[in-house]
Amino acid sequence: MKKVILAPDSFKGTMSSMEICDIMETAIREVEPGCRVIKLPVADGGEGTVAAMLAAAGGTRVTTRVSGPFGDEIESFYGLLDGGGIAVVEMAAAAGLPMVKGSEDPLRTTTYGVGQLIAAAVDRGARQVLVGLGGSCTNDGGCGAAAALGVIFYNKDNEAFVPTGGTLRDIARIDVTQAKKRLQGVRVRLMCDVNNPLYGENGAAYVFGPQKGADEAAVRALDGGLRHLGALLDELCPGVSQRPGAGAAGGMGAGLTALLGAESVSGIDGVLDAVRFESMLEGCDMVFSGEGRIDGQSLRGKVIFGVCRRAKQYGVPVCAVVGDALDDQLGEAAGRGLCAVFTTNRRAVPVKEARLTARKDLYHTMKNIMSFLNAAK
Amino acid sequence: MKKVILAPDSFKGTMSSMEICDIMETAIREVEPGCRVIKLPVADGGEGTVAAMLAAAGGTRVTTRVSGPFGDEIESFYGLLDGGGIAVVEMAAAAGLPMVKGSEDPLRTTTYGVGQLIAAAVDRGARQVLVGLGGSCTNDGGCGAAAALGVIFYNKDNEAFVPTGGTLRDIARIDVTQAKKRLQGVRVRLMCDVNNPLYGENGAAYVFGPQKGADEAAVRALDGGLRHLGALLDELCPGVSQRPGAGAAGGMGAGLTALLGAESVSGIDGVLDAVRFESMLEGCDMVFSGEGRIDGQSLRGKVIFGVCRRAKQYGVPVCAVVGDALDDQLGEAAGRGLCAVFTTNRRAVPVKEARLTARKDLYHTMKNIMSFLNAAK
Repeated sequence: MKKVILAPDSFKGTMSSMEICDIMETAIREVEPGCRVIKLPVADGGEGTVAAMLAAAGGTRVTTRVSGPFGDEIESFYGLLDGGGIAVVEMAAAAGLPMVKGSEDPLRTTTYGVGQLIAAAVDRGARQVLVGLGGSCTNDGGCGAAAALGVIFYNKDNEAFVPTGGTLRDIARIDVTQAKKRLQGVRVRLMCDVNNPLYGENGAAYVFGPQKGADEAAVRALDGGLRHLGALLDELCPGVSQRPGAGAAGGMGAGLTALLGAESVSGIDGVLDAVRFESMLEGCDMVFSGEGRIDGQSLRGKVIFGVCRRAKQYGVPVCAVVGDALDDQLGEAAGRGLCAVFTTNRRAVPVKEARLTARKDLYHTMKNIMSFLNAAK
Repeated sequence: MKKVILAPDSFKGTMSSMEICDIMETAIREVEPGCRVIKLPVADGGEGTVAAMLAAAGGTRVTTRVSGPFGDEIESFYGLLDGGGIAVVEMAAAAGLPMVKGSEDPLRTTTYGVGQLIAAAVDRGARQVLVGLGGSCTNDGGCGAAAALGVIFYNKDNEAFVPTGGTLRDIARIDVTQAKKRLQGVRVRLMCDVNNPLYGENGAAYVFGPQKGADEAAVRALDGGLRHLGALLDELCPGVSQRPGAGAAGGMGAGLTALLGAESVSGIDGVLDAVRFESMLEGCDMVFSGEGRIDGQSLRGKVIFGVCRRAKQYGVPVCAVVGDALDDQLGEAAGRGLCAVFTTNRRAVPVKEARLTARKDLYHTMKNIMSFLNAAK
């Protein structure tokens, strides 16, 4: 092995994608010290997305002052990737849940700072802005972010205002003209892996509101606001409120799509596009991917097969290292470019117990895979 | 892969060595149809030992009539391996526990038939007789088998008799002259993987007596008999009654060692010697071994490292496929020629549940190993 790429999903609740990359790299280097190892930790859009992307592709972390979740000024950051033109913004850096710990209030919090981060990146010349939706404390349907980029919200008295979760109902009219001009020639891509619609029982308020501090009454109020906003957004972009992911990040999914013409992309595709994955495959012997559990669902769009789809075109085999493998559901795997699935269960113990030794077990699994290859050559 | 050897131990209580070989072979052939696969199921000395050895090395199954456990005539068998001169006898074929089901009585059962099988093999020209000790219903210290080969036991009245478990105390004198003559130039090798001494609380009667049908009183009587026999055997062969394995198969270990000059060998060494393992390693790409659980103990003499010791000399890597791997105890593994350890736990479930899908899981594990190799080439 001269060159390998590591592109695992996180093992949800056990290890982050970055941790997995690091453990895999350690094991690989012990067996093949000369091997070039490229780590592509897969961002889930939440906290750490920018760091992960910069680690994978190289680039610059730019700090800037923006509005925090309650309108107070904070220091925040975004990433400018090498190869130029691509910026990465993580929503959690300006509207993150940990920033409001103890005073959570999705009726009042704003995504305005997220819009300022996007604006700053565009001003620095980014022609593509990847926005990680995850870990937010807001429920403003992305209105704050849109306002920061020039979208104007008017109330029934024709007064401009910046809506928050609690004032979405007051929006009477929306003007996107200035924002459209400002973002001309810029692609805004939302990285998002949830499928919720904007409102209703599976919508942003009901599903994510409580973890953002909303009680029952607040959830009802937030949902009502999103419903009102949804009707306005649907006028701008028919059906947008019902699209899978519309309810991501307190409605940011639907909002930025309708108001800024943003497009949605899965976390893995966002990462692989941004780092120019295809160019990395040149001369690569093997891609190691993985996830907590590989099953029939994995064959459709999740990380491993997102990686496989691209690697296959370049004839690079993909090997998955997983917690659990549901082999009976993986009949098509080989045809999709997945050459092997190894599990990290070094002993027959239940998940709860296996989690305690997950890091060590992953290390040993990876080391044995590499030693095996080495010996079989 | 052009040629592989499969030499796994059984997964105790889950799959026999032969079953494991068959499953591994199926998976290998699906990925590498042209690969030559040599199966060496590792006999544990019990029922199936002869069949396993014949399957591995080729040869002839010879049937013959001998004495059963209660002295009744039965049809039994032994194996003559190809390459001539080596015979394999399994004790269970003439003194097996299933043969006395419902009328177990280790005070009365005899190993006479086992001795007759050895005699028959020697008469057919075998110069080495491998005797699998396992699954026996007897506790006669091997006296029956020895008698069948010419050893004479005298009571205090100088009358010759064939002792059983209940009459070992009556032995006053033993004459091995004729048996020694008869076995001149013949190596009798006992395949045995237990370490019990002849008598005492870890001896044959106390440890194995109950499963052969002995109640408490019978266990005491049997142990007393073995103690008496032990003193006589120790005169012929100092210390034999305390050697590890002396108590194997109702004392057969100590008896045949002292009375017939038999030597002891581990199951794996017995098999590997008999099939001329070293000659099979020529042109072999990989040996797949395995066991239910690999741990620090495995580094000393068990199947996997028995295989490694020989394969290493010929530079052929060994890969283990196991149920559980206790990685922390396997630091020396690589130095001993074990290139990799893969586990069959495809999901994180406890042993009890894992056993239910063991065959399927082994198949998938093996298939992924082979596909991985294939893709990495």
